[in-house]
Amino acid sequence: MENQLPPSLSLGEIVGRLGGELIGDASVKVRQVATLEKAAPDTIAFLANERYLGQLKTTRAGAVIVGAKLSEPLDMPRIVAVNPYAYFARVSALFNPVPANVAGIHPAAVVHPQAILGAGVYIGPGAVIEAGVTLGKNCSIGAGTCLGAGVEVGEGGMLYPNVTVYHGCKLGKRVIIHAGAVIGADGFGIAMDDGRWLKVPQIGRVVIGDDVEIGANTTIDRGAIDDTVIEDGVKLDNQIQVGHNVRIGAHTAIAACVGIAGSSRIGRLCRIGGASGIAGHLTITDNVEISAHTLVTKSITEAGTYTGAYPFENNRDWRRNAASLRNLGELTTRVRAMEQELKQGKKGKS
Amino acid sequence: MENQLPPSLSLGEIVGRLGGELIGDASVKVRQVATLEKAAPDTIAFLANERYLGQLKTTRAGAVIVGAKLSEPLDMPRIVAVNPYAYFARVSALFNPVPANVAGIHPAAVVHPQAILGAGVYIGPGAVIEAGVTLGKNCSIGAGTCLGAGVEVGEGGMLYPNVTVYHGCKLGKRVIIHAGAVIGADGFGIAMDDGRWLKVPQIGRVVIGDDVEIGANTTIDRGAIDDTVIEDGVKLDNQIQVGHNVRIGAHTAIAACVGIAGSSRIGRLCRIGGASGIAGHLTITDNVEISAHTLVTKSITEAGTYTGAYPFENNRDWRRNAASLRNLGELTTRVRAMEQELKQGKKGKS
Amino acid sequence: MENQLPPSLSLGEIVGRLGGELIGDASVKVRQVATLEKAAPDTIAFLANERYLGQLKTTRAGAVIVGAKLSEPLDMPRIVAVNPYAYFARVSALFNPVPANVAGIHPAAVVHPQAILGAGVYIGPGAVIEAGVTLGKNCSIGAGTCLGAGVEVGEGGMLYPNVTVYHGCKLGKRVIIHAGAVIGADGFGIAMDDGRWLKVPQIGRVVIGDDVEIGANTTIDRGAIDDTVIEDGVKLDNQIQVGHNVRIGAHTAIAACVGIAGSSRIGRLCRIGGASGIAGHLTITDNVEISAHTLVTKSITEAGTYTGAYPFENNRDWRRNAASLRNLGELTTRVRAMEQELKQGKKGKS
Repeated sequence: MENQLPPSLSLGEIVGRLGGELIGDASVKVRQVATLEKAAPDTIAFLANERYLGQLKTTRAGAVIVGAKLSEPLDMPRIVAVNPYAYFARVSALFNPVPANVAGIHPAAVVHPQAILGAGVYIGPGAVIEAGVTLGKNCSIGAGTCLGAGVEVGEGGMLYPNVTVYHGCKLGKRVIIHAGAVIGADGFGIAMDDGRWLKVPQIGRVVIGDDVEIGANTTIDRGAIDDTVIEDGVKLDNQIQVGHNVRIGAHTAIAACVGIAGSSRIGRLCRIGGASGIAGHLTITDNVEISAHTLVTKSITEAGTYTGAYPFENNRDWRRNAASLRNLGELTTRVRAMEQELKQGKKGKS
Repeated sequence: MENQLPPSLSLGEIVGRLGGELIGDASVKVRQVATLEKAAPDTIAFLANERYLGQLKTTRAGAVIVGAKLSEPLDMPRIVAVNPYAYFARVSALFNPVPANVAGIHPAAVVHPQAILGAGVYIGPGAVIEAGVTLGKNCSIGAGTCLGAGVEVGEGGMLYPNVTVYHGCKLGKRVIIHAGAVIGADGFGIAMDDGRWLKVPQIGRVVIGDDVEIGANTTIDRGAIDDTVIEDGVKLDNQIQVGHNVRIGAHTAIAACVGIAGSSRIGRLCRIGGASGIAGHLTITDNVEISAHTLVTKSITEAGTYTGAYPFENNRDWRRNAASLRNLGELTTRVRAMEQELKQGKKGKS
Repeated sequence: MENQLPPSLSLGEIVGRLGGELIGDASVKVRQVATLEKAAPDTIAFLANERYLGQLKTTRAGAVIVGAKLSEPLDMPRIVAVNPYAYFARVSALFNPVPANVAGIHPAAVVHPQAILGAGVYIGPGAVIEAGVTLGKNCSIGAGTCLGAGVEVGEGGMLYPNVTVYHGCKLGKRVIIHAGAVIGADGFGIAMDDGRWLKVPQIGRVVIGDDVEIGANTTIDRGAIDDTVIEDGVKLDNQIQVGHNVRIGAHTAIAACVGIAGSSRIGRLCRIGGASGIAGHLTITDNVEISAHTLVTKSITEAGTYTGAYPFENNRDWRRNAASLRNLGELTTRVRAMEQELKQGKKGKS
């Protein structure tokens, strides 16, 4: 945790600002959020995952945010919220507001004279802004971040250090991009021709909507012909790979290490688990949940949860089961043969 | 798509330059490539994937590139090519040539006086060129890219921003490296010794052949003793990890997120699907295709296609099947026992 | 291999410094380590993996390091070591010592006046050191590396180029971080709220112990509330993703491309194979080995080896077996029914 704790708020003030039902002493003051496990008396914790229910009894927190379901008596004040995790997010934002942007262009930044910079823009040392770049007001461009020719960043964009955005890409408002991400590199377009690969020019862009967050070292390739599109409110974790001409629907959230092959279209409000993959040229409808480590090889037309991870086990059991798996087709045939035999036997008897 | 469209060419001129059979009006002019779906009348589209056959009827393209198999009548002119995707790649390259390198060293680049720079070299702002680096003619080194001591880049090398190449590594001619890639970091060489890991010095290099393209945020480790080698014409997508002392054969193409463990040797003209893995110390022969999400745990001595992804399904079915999978070895034993019993039963009867 | 070979040592000198039993001529001199396959007569090779036993007969090495088990006669001198790979690591370190740090701040580095720099520190061109950073003595900060406000790096830290460390993170002594790694980016903390994702402020830090090595393009997220912790001696390969509030126990080694979801705790001396995943909120005890491509979905309380990769096979066999896998639950039911039937049949007879 940071060393400097923010000024305190009473529980009454918190409920006054954010709603929720307060049970207990409204004058109790807290000055930071905390986990149940490590909470100090001047902090407020939350319970959103039943896994941590046992910690409620031992926590030293001054108050706790809980869901409506929790009926157990508590010694400490509680705020009952319909969605305790979202409520917690809001409380944390009260105590930990995003620091105001410090406007200014560092003398060690390299800004092309034909770039257009909005009011309040910050550009860090070593950042490189090429010709024709447009930065909306209050954008923050981190040290060492490179924006290629013609890149547009909407107002309030926050690019951390060492990000690379290739020429022509367009980012919406309030986009956050973490360090090491690469937006708009060439898609993997190659054509086999007489024993050699021919490069297919990648002339599309990456177009990113408003309120998108992109994790560290994530890569989003530019389109081969048309654009790669990330719609509003999409949240991408770290080390995700988005192939050329993919479209990701609004408010979809994707966990780390996922790979999405070229030209696939993912719906709105989907949730994709870590290290999953989406093969190319598929369509996934809205509200689909993909479990971790799943490879999606066909389009999905119905909302729901889809899974394809091999169930792990101790190595000895795995060896036996995996060896059997290699003969599963044959086993199925043998079972069918026995079923026939038993059926024939019955007929013979009757 | 880019705003400025290139000058137009007639279909007759295209076929004159690139071959293929033109059916229809040779005077029709086009000025860019397009997808069937979004084509305008002054563009030429292509059909290489039958998935998009339906779009042929509704496209507004001025012409289309198709394979010899397609026999359907079309209203618009078509160019028939043996390999329509490769033909399309060439047409696109006509309209979208690689921009000529702008020679020059940006004043904010840091170039060691003992570096040797060929004619026509470009070095972007914030790029760092250490002692003993050799850049062939017409190399382009992007902003923020760092080349360690003694690195060699052959002529026409194109390194995008924020690439890192460690000391001593050698890149062939016309190599393209996308942003964030790291070439020549230490391999994962550690020896367990009395409850602690001892670092094994990594004294090999990475040696990369001609016409290799390396995707964004891909990492290729230097050899532990001998070199890690990427042969001519290899194409690596984004976020691939190549371990120390791996050798990748010429013209092999590897999709994103693949990991190749140390000392494995991959043949020529292989194709490896996204997020697959190759365990260490294996040998994969030429012309092997590995499907996506497959872990290769043994050497492969015969060309062909190899697969190992768990088939995804809706979560309810997956739960049932995966639970059964954990007992598959036992199920196999039970089936064998029944087969014996049925056999015995027959003997008893006869 | 590097061009300049180090000065030679006799086998007697090597055994004098590092122990081990020498069999053969102690005056034989070597000047570098080598692989059995490519060894020259003035080098010393090693055999730690039986896979390479055949190369012992043909190697041109001047000497070889072997384990106690190897009883075959050899023409060349050998050093017998309990742990030949660790012994080799030490011999290689004799010939290939880490180059001494060249102290100094490059004029193109950007160092905040409120940073505190120990003696002997090196800061490369384009590196950015923000306010309140503390660098221990003999730290080396590579070109283009960015350290956010308040970052601490212990003595002897070695950060390669283009690393990003976010504000407030703390690195122990002798930490090595390879190029492109990102330490302390925001964890993936989002709360669904009325059809949109709400960002949860990530106010923890990343705290890294002594003697940790972190591979190229690996990402370690800062904690949501408490810190993400990497204990002493942990070794992380390239392209690993460590989620917020993870704790990795001392001397655990993790191969490339692994993803660890938020709040999981991994024990000491674990070994995790490439491209594996650990789901969130789990606890893995000490001395656990996870095979490559395994998704761990439950806590592990017993030391041992755990596996969950789909066994790969040629595509034709895979198709048949995978299709059967989709019906495995049903097959199990059918087998149970047959077993019942056979049992009934017996009863009927008796």
